[in-house]
Amino acid sequence: MSDKPQPPYWTVIFPSQRTTEDAEGYGIMAKRMVELAKAQLGFLGMDSARDASGFGITVSYWQSLDAIEAWRNHPEHLHAQALGRSKWYAEFEVHIAKVERSYLFRYDK
Amino acid sequence: MSDKPQPPYWTVIFPSQRTTEDAEGYGIMAKRMVELAKAQLGFLGMDSARDASGFGITVSYWQSLDAIEAWRNHPEHLHAQALGRSKWYAEFEVHIAKVERSYLFRYDK
Repeated sequence: MSDKPQPPYWTVIFPSQRTTEDAEGYGIMAKRMVELAKAQLGFLGMDSARDASGFGITVSYWQSLDAIEAWRNHPEHLHAQALGRSKWYAEFEVHIAKVERSYLFRYDK
Repeated sequence: MSDKPQPPYWTVIFPSQRTTEDAEGYGIMAKRMVELAKAQLGFLGMDSARDASGFGITVSYWQSLDAIEAWRNHPEHLHAQALGRSKWYAEFEVHIAKVERSYLFRYDK
């Protein structure tokens, strides 16, 4: 988890079910996409968790809808999306949302 | 993943890091909270993934901010939140956001 600015900011929620195909290729691409997303203008942060069944959620945070649109259309990302549809994901959703309230907690005992 | 209505609808994004404490009590409460959330007015769906390190993301979807507020203040949920802060979570964030666009993909080969 990473510090975020005060709302409003934007988020992309991406729940996905992995197929059992191509764990190695998927892993390499997932790592590259995180690296690339972090380098985009307007990127604010990203969290990701995937369980042993292959179900995962990635949430990324952005300064604006334009930043999300630019990331969505990045050539390397488009290539990854095509591979995602053709072999890596059995199912996924994308929800684009405007964060209006936010708070965090850290255990400090 | 579950079918959602057309946007707009609301979402609560809840990334969290579990402590290593009380796996059994946490598991029972987590299950109960899912059951209870599903019974709330305005509940639209919920997805959750937690990895082996104890980092997880839960995303729930709601018809309105009022529905989120009512769920946040449900007495059993308030009790769970207090236990979450005192022992189950090392860290968490809550992002409340309005979903403005949404799409889904299902692999049908």
